[in-house]
Amino acid sequence: MSSSTALLTDHYELTMLASALRDGTAHRECVFEVFTRRLPNGRRYGVAGGIGRVLDAVENFRFGEAELAQLAEHEVVDERTLDWLRDYRFSGQIDGYPEGELYFPGSPLLTVRGTFAEAVVLETVILSILNHDSAIAAAAARMVSAANGRRIIEMGSRRTHEESAVSAARIAYLAGFTATSNLEAGRRYGIPTTGTAAHAFTLLHDSEASAFESQIAALGTGTTLLVDTYDISRGIDLAVRTAGTGLGAVRIDSGDVGVLARQAREQLDSLGATGTRVVVSGDLDEYAIASLRAEPVDGYGVGTSLVTGSGAPTAEMVYKLVEVEGRPVAKRSSHKESRGGRKAAIRRCKETGTAVEEVVHGADAEPSLGPHDRHVQIPMIRDGKLVDDLPTLEQDRERLRRALVTLPWEGLKLSNGEPAIPTVFLGS
Amino acid sequence: MSSSTALLTDHYELTMLASALRDGTAHRECVFEVFTRRLPNGRRYGVAGGIGRVLDAVENFRFGEAELAQLAEHEVVDERTLDWLRDYRFSGQIDGYPEGELYFPGSPLLTVRGTFAEAVVLETVILSILNHDSAIAAAAARMVSAANGRRIIEMGSRRTHEESAVSAARIAYLAGFTATSNLEAGRRYGIPTTGTAAHAFTLLHDSEASAFESQIAALGTGTTLLVDTYDISRGIDLAVRTAGTGLGAVRIDSGDVGVLARQAREQLDSLGATGTRVVVSGDLDEYAIASLRAEPVDGYGVGTSLVTGSGAPTAEMVYKLVEVEGRPVAKRSSHKESRGGRKAAIRRCKETGTAVEEVVHGADAEPSLGPHDRHVQIPMIRDGKLVDDLPTLEQDRERLRRALVTLPWEGLKLSNGEPAIPTVFLGS
Repeated sequence: MSSSTALLTDHYELTMLASALRDGTAHRECVFEVFTRRLPNGRRYGVAGGIGRVLDAVENFRFGEAELAQLAEHEVVDERTLDWLRDYRFSGQIDGYPEGELYFPGSPLLTVRGTFAEAVVLETVILSILNHDSAIAAAAARMVSAANGRRIIEMGSRRTHEESAVSAARIAYLAGFTATSNLEAGRRYGIPTTGTAAHAFTLLHDSEASAFESQIAALGTGTTLLVDTYDISRGIDLAVRTAGTGLGAVRIDSGDVGVLARQAREQLDSLGATGTRVVVSGDLDEYAIASLRAEPVDGYGVGTSLVTGSGAPTAEMVYKLVEVEGRPVAKRSSHKESRGGRKAAIRRCKETGTAVEEVVHGADAEPSLGPHDRHVQIPMIRDGKLVDDLPTLEQDRERLRRALVTLPWEGLKLSNGEPAIPTVFLGS
Repeated sequence: MSSSTALLTDHYELTMLASALRDGTAHRECVFEVFTRRLPNGRRYGVAGGIGRVLDAVENFRFGEAELAQLAEHEVVDERTLDWLRDYRFSGQIDGYPEGELYFPGSPLLTVRGTFAEAVVLETVILSILNHDSAIAAAAARMVSAANGRRIIEMGSRRTHEESAVSAARIAYLAGFTATSNLEAGRRYGIPTTGTAAHAFTLLHDSEASAFESQIAALGTGTTLLVDTYDISRGIDLAVRTAGTGLGAVRIDSGDVGVLARQAREQLDSLGATGTRVVVSGDLDEYAIASLRAEPVDGYGVGTSLVTGSGAPTAEMVYKLVEVEGRPVAKRSSHKESRGGRKAAIRRCKETGTAVEEVVHGADAEPSLGPHDRHVQIPMIRDGKLVDDLPTLEQDRERLRRALVTLPWEGLKLSNGEPAIPTVFLGS
């Protein structure tokens, strides 16, 4: 696998480039904007996810000999375009919403400025990353809210593409998940990984007892024993008899986990294992997590619903040309029209910090900033180079945690509804 | 990015390995089976997708120094396990459904035989690939059926993770899509790629006329002009005036594409451009495609719905330990119980070739094979090596095309319902 991101690109980006190089328009200064027209499924907020990966992808967007040979052999573009691509390196400006920031319909999530040629070719990979990662981010944030401070672990790798899995693990951590099962995410992003055993481990052994003994011998009594391979209450009994009352946790992966968690808690307490945690997993989504709030659950393992965006697997963002040589442009044939001109956004907030509205304005016509308002975009790339002191994943994680607190109380409701704050478009 | 697939793995696979190496059970001969308990969303059939990628992933499942260092540093496993992983190379047997084959609930899609140690560690990456690719495959096959012989192009890269996009393009081709927009899929899998221009190209220019002129100069009159940037009928008029009646195609990407396609056809015909094709795109799924059957549409561009599995983004497959040292094993605590023992499948068919049922039987208790029945699994890996003459992507594409013809007529209905043929479990 090449580390170049240059071919993670739609064919037509390069044919447009070829035509524009030929007629001279390729060098016109342009502004492209990433935004979404709506939040999926009646969600109340979106979460900017994948910005850090976008910046990496832009840095690695280079056409080496392997990429050029492929384009030449298949006559995707002409010789002139190949020559131009050989030296490609984005030299423009990118501003955007930092990762973990909330967004709403019309929020200018990313603004890319440069010549048409250098900006248009980035469309596909930028959208791929933002559409995937932001979809996961919104689902993950809702789950963390629903978990209400309890530990929540990402374990969905097996339910999605093997590379999406790594990115989803990163985003889950951004959103406040405690850890992931995905080892590659641990390597690539320094995220804590965790895991103990599956049912196969118990089935492999001659008895549940020998499986538990083996796991404790290898991982210590602080480990989590999976107790639902045969009979849960016998499993719990055996787990405490084997590990002692210092057992770290029991995990239940099937059945009506609410009822079972309560029974498990009572049984553990009656056995004296009052400090042993109860962890549940198995087809949990934000609604199931919320429904378990009153139950004695200490931790959740979440898989499928996280990595599939819990019903909204893509964030539906678009990358639109909004300005050419300082002139606003927009498609006009349908309701899908967009607003021309480079934009920026202000998050208006009350003195309490509660967000009131998202003001999207022309970049050159900034309205007055109230005492608690703030600019949402930050500079990310200047003249092709990453700006200094871009936020780290840990900082973005804290950003999201704080941002959710600023939502009006209705904003954290899991039910479908309107965006938590309205978007107000000024000018244009 | 490393080409090793070894860390695309859940942490617990390796802690299970460590425990099992410690207690000696790691070397027990095991059989793991991949299957799904149900088809998502009332689908009538599943399509095996990703098998070729699974075989590649197994070959590249090696722990190099970079992977081992990561595991050592984070104390995922002990020294003994690191030593064992250093020499890891799958040496067992894999049988499975070839790519493009249909499957049903309980079909033994993949059977992995080897020691517990060498088979358990493959679980995550095998499931990631099969769950993603088979989800896309089923959606893609339904779209191709709905298109009923018309050309259909995959252009969903921007709506999904950048690497899922490449795999989705491969699967779309498997399912009968004509081409993809994804250049990396072209490089990696030799799939035809295609594309011309987006609205940005028109907006970049001083007028629609100059955009069309430029595109035709670069790509010839056989190109596809996107005619809905401003006003569709004026766009079509301009397109034919600019390219002549030999224009290849017009594309409409917005609005009620059925009505607009009809109007476009009439207008093109009236202008003498009777050979110019009408291509539509924009939020099409299998239902929208089917609803356009009566309209004069020559080709479809499909994006979001394809790459998100059209409502079923994961195939819900599991990888279950079913046999240890020749002894069937199965979890027993809940309704999610599975059937123990290594299995295989026979597709029972009528003389006409129509499939009648999926017979899943113990691998050692094969029922008699009727004259039109066939074994569904094929050998894929023997003693760790790929068998000779594994099918190519083109052969698998043809396999799926033929397989869909064997479904009972209800099987191709897009509406929700029961699987097209029942699964019958023999013995066990």
